[in-house]
Amino acid sequence: MNQPRPVFFISDGTGITAETIGHSLLTQFAGVDFDTTRIAFVDTADKARAAAEQIAAAGLRSGLRPIVVNSAVDAELIALLGESGGLMLDVFAPFILPLEQELGMKRQARAGQAHGLVDFAAYESRINATNYALTHDDGVDLDYDEADLILVGVSRSGKTPTCLYLALHYGVKAANYPLTDDDLESEELPKRLKAHKRKLFGLTIDPVRLQQIRNERKPNSRYATIEQCRKEVARAEALFRAVGLPSLSTTHTSIEEIASKVLAQFGIKKHMF
Amino acid sequence: MNQPRPVFFISDGTGITAETIGHSLLTQFAGVDFDTTRIAFVDTADKARAAAEQIAAAGLRSGLRPIVVNSAVDAELIALLGESGGLMLDVFAPFILPLEQELGMKRQARAGQAHGLVDFAAYESRINATNYALTHDDGVDLDYDEADLILVGVSRSGKTPTCLYLALHYGVKAANYPLTDDDLESEELPKRLKAHKRKLFGLTIDPVRLQQIRNERKPNSRYATIEQCRKEVARAEALFRAVGLPSLSTTHTSIEEIASKVLAQFGIKKHMF
Repeated sequence: MNQPRPVFFISDGTGITAETIGHSLLTQFAGVDFDTTRIAFVDTADKARAAAEQIAAAGLRSGLRPIVVNSAVDAELIALLGESGGLMLDVFAPFILPLEQELGMKRQARAGQAHGLVDFAAYESRINATNYALTHDDGVDLDYDEADLILVGVSRSGKTPTCLYLALHYGVKAANYPLTDDDLESEELPKRLKAHKRKLFGLTIDPVRLQQIRNERKPNSRYATIEQCRKEVARAEALFRAVGLPSLSTTHTSIEEIASKVLAQFGIKKHMF
Repeated sequence: MNQPRPVFFISDGTGITAETIGHSLLTQFAGVDFDTTRIAFVDTADKARAAAEQIAAAGLRSGLRPIVVNSAVDAELIALLGESGGLMLDVFAPFILPLEQELGMKRQARAGQAHGLVDFAAYESRINATNYALTHDDGVDLDYDEADLILVGVSRSGKTPTCLYLALHYGVKAANYPLTDDDLESEELPKRLKAHKRKLFGLTIDPVRLQQIRNERKPNSRYATIEQCRKEVARAEALFRAVGLPSLSTTHTSIEEIASKVLAQFGIKKHMF
């Protein structure tokens, strides 16, 4: 059997930048088996030496040169990591010089800064949005005046994780409203939603997939029968069409993609935290 | 007044990779005012042309050359975007050739693939973990056998958003337990936590900051007095020390950093979604 190729995501901060770009790079080499390890907060020479030893050991063990996706910015730390013998991919390095030239200034190098210090205002907007999503989940609280947007769909169509993702990443206040059997009897919007039509976005899902998800949650319930799922989805989609709601199928769409498309639909410019 | 420098995060997918690395790059140039715009799902020549026009217009308006952080991989799309006249920073380009050489194969170029198709198993692990976090939030459900870890701390110390972040991004099942006045009367672990000591991680926070957060939530309550916050935090920290729990102050720490440090503490290797 082939050994997997060792890959290390190294950072002087959380490692999220290194892991995000590294993961995107690796998916462009389908069929290769990678063994990924994250080493975060490498912000001293000692930690860089320890990381380099760990990388070198993985190379010896596997007989394959490790790939090091590195977002640490300090030259000394980078040099120490390079002693591992791994293939160094420094994620910021290629872009610093062109940016310095364009902006007419030197970047400020400081370990760990890439992810910034905590901005209390930004933190609060994320936390407030998260609390909002939690209290306006599944129609629990129906006061939607404060909502930036409201996701509408049948139970288990992906509303809750999308709302939480929008809150945690963008500080967007997203409520969600589950379409009940009663709601689905007509092709009109439920009364409580009518005043907020411009904030609504529909989520739909393939009935077979929905049935799988519901069956995991409530095995052998009526709720999880394929007939019930088919009926609810067909009616929800008919409702979206009848009232002209923008909508999206979540069946083959990741949470990130749903969130991204919803933001694009509403032209929400908030940047990611 | 100076015009802000226009910056565009362009992607053939969600734009998360471009935005993550772009944002990290920009923070290295403190003091520059940037006006950032995300254009996601640029996966056709028409969309690339429209994006290029939008970029060029921003350049004209501001009188400053736009910066384009681009994660689209198709050469034709990149060329069209380049016609905007912006400074092109292609986030994958510098790393593809070294990776191709190291792996002895060509990468597979396909628009939008960087973020992959949806992997149902991964999706399910995120959703299940999110449901777990929601049902095991603030001591609602006390069955911790399934938990990967349990965050412990006083009310509003940052437990809930961290649990949700761990669930959405890593598929980690994180429960949280709020320390009540009763719990804080002794320096022993609450009975329900004793059996799970190896899964526990303490969160603490500066009492002045805690007071601010609580006061926003319940203005002028006893809960939000500085005396109450000081007392709870001091006792929680004493408890962590007495029973030897690993802990972290969330005062100056972003959700990403808390999550990262918690994963490192438990040696959880799950990779980011």
